[in-house]
Amino acid sequence: MTDVATCTETVPMPLPAPSPFAGLSAFPLTPVRDGRLDEDAFAGLIDRLVAAGVDSIAPLGSIGCGPYFSPEDRAEVARLTVDRADGIPVTIGIGALSTRDVLTNAEAAAAAGAAALLLAPVSYHPLTETEVVELFRAVTSASGLPVIVYDNPTTTRFTFTTELYARLSEIEGIAAIKIPGLPLSPADWQERVAGIRQATGGRVAIGVSVDAYGAEGLIAGCDAWFSAIGGTIPAPMLAITRAIQAGEAERARELAVHPQPLWDLFSAHGGSLRVGAAIAEHLGLVTGDCLPAPLKGLSTEDKRRVASVIDDLGLS
Amino acid sequence: MTDVATCTETVPMPLPAPSPFAGLSAFPLTPVRDGRLDEDAFAGLIDRLVAAGVDSIAPLGSIGCGPYFSPEDRAEVARLTVDRADGIPVTIGIGALSTRDVLTNAEAAAAAGAAALLLAPVSYHPLTETEVVELFRAVTSASGLPVIVYDNPTTTRFTFTTELYARLSEIEGIAAIKIPGLPLSPADWQERVAGIRQATGGRVAIGVSVDAYGAEGLIAGCDAWFSAIGGTIPAPMLAITRAIQAGEAERARELAVHPQPLWDLFSAHGGSLRVGAAIAEHLGLVTGDCLPAPLKGLSTEDKRRVASVIDDLGLS
Repeated sequence: MTDVATCTETVPMPLPAPSPFAGLSAFPLTPVRDGRLDEDAFAGLIDRLVAAGVDSIAPLGSIGCGPYFSPEDRAEVARLTVDRADGIPVTIGIGALSTRDVLTNAEAAAAAGAAALLLAPVSYHPLTETEVVELFRAVTSASGLPVIVYDNPTTTRFTFTTELYARLSEIEGIAAIKIPGLPLSPADWQERVAGIRQATGGRVAIGVSVDAYGAEGLIAGCDAWFSAIGGTIPAPMLAITRAIQAGEAERARELAVHPQPLWDLFSAHGGSLRVGAAIAEHLGLVTGDCLPAPLKGLSTEDKRRVASVIDDLGLS
Repeated sequence: MTDVATCTETVPMPLPAPSPFAGLSAFPLTPVRDGRLDEDAFAGLIDRLVAAGVDSIAPLGSIGCGPYFSPEDRAEVARLTVDRADGIPVTIGIGALSTRDVLTNAEAAAAAGAAALLLAPVSYHPLTETEVVELFRAVTSASGLPVIVYDNPTTTRFTFTTELYARLSEIEGIAAIKIPGLPLSPADWQERVAGIRQATGGRVAIGVSVDAYGAEGLIAGCDAWFSAIGGTIPAPMLAITRAIQAGEAERARELAVHPQPLWDLFSAHGGSLRVGAAIAEHLGLVTGDCLPAPLKGLSTEDKRRVASVIDDLGLS
């Protein structure tokens, strides 16, 4: 994706859009109402992302709660998204506990017209490295779509090493790696991204996740920001992304500091999921608690706090 | 289940068999062959447990890989087990990521004639305590079958506190708690079980899991040993259980020390799952790798080591 010779560049080299591996990839919620997929609310979320002009749309990732939905619902979400995406590339999260379901989801995503697949090694029994490699091989062998390796230790309890990134990057069909954001200094971020770029020989794009670190990841040379909050509040995240793509790192950092109270809420509530759902509810994008059971929304008091932070920050 | 007044007894008071909450509850593998449920091999495993005379049979738990199978396969496993169990009580593991699937599994278990349900709070997004309580409430409200709370932090990443055990024990329909085994001294085991018994007011049975600690857990007053290895090698585990039920703690400890090399293998391979599958293969109970993908069997070399330990110990 990116030439090895550019691995020490500090100014990122964005891939030509539209690509599911560059710029802002927005991860929408998959709202549930009365125990069923709320197709109307979901369609509204996609329309919002299209209107904002995000670079790609990625439903059924972690905030999209992919693993909680049946293969049938997941196929429906894939179809709905591609139908409304107005040509914006769509990445479909296909992670599931069984390889059988993962392959079913991959097939449905391809049938719907997705541009890429996102695969987290979902686990009940913690997986071995060999099992994870075989899982990615199973998908790349079965599907013609490019695959994004989704490294999310909080949800999968699997720890990828840089050596494993390198090994996976050699599999035909692996197109990108979604790395977890970390609280590093700008210099350490650059070293980290350069190290992954070198280890993977420039064969794959690199995307950063965990929204509080999106800006620093992009500034350090990541190709994409896989953004959970960008699926609900796309405009401010897009402004940060565009600033970085224009080489204006300092302006991007200023824009990225503004939502700090929001990042603090994510930390306080174990990530973006429940806070993101509360934001969507506050903005009238979903009706009431919209997460699939057993997941629940925040308490009324915590929802009120989220609403006040969103209003104070002027986010919408 | 057990009177509060007996909570400091050191000699366990077994419940009258047959009960899914007393004695040895054996957890069979759910063998897969060519990507499909191997019904013949599974039937053979159940027949073996019936012949050994275990106190209850619990398929689709952790070693039974319940969460990896489709609701249809799980219903089939429930039917097959009850049909062949010859009157031995059957507990069905119903854990799944979504509450919807959990309830579907509970209904299928009841329709099959199961005696109890075993529910682990399976997670992708780590669950909050409120979410776990609501999950158990959803199942006890929907099903007339008694429910065993399955505390398995390794697979669920959820940590139960004794206070939460107490809270759950007050829910009508919660009949037992399956606690994780720990490397404690006999005195600390007794204190732990007595503490849980007191906190739960004797309203629920207590079962111990993690096979290396099964004997000590029973000696300390647990009502049941929920045994993974007992699903594949029932006789030696039953001998330990019967010795404890007869009040012969020292003889039970001697019997339980004998398989120490096996417990060491479990530790070396992250639990009983992959070693258990290798044992079943070595004993000719399943054909080749029998775990559902992405889970894989041990390497050929590790399988050989398991086989030699089993042969040296004279286990079969």
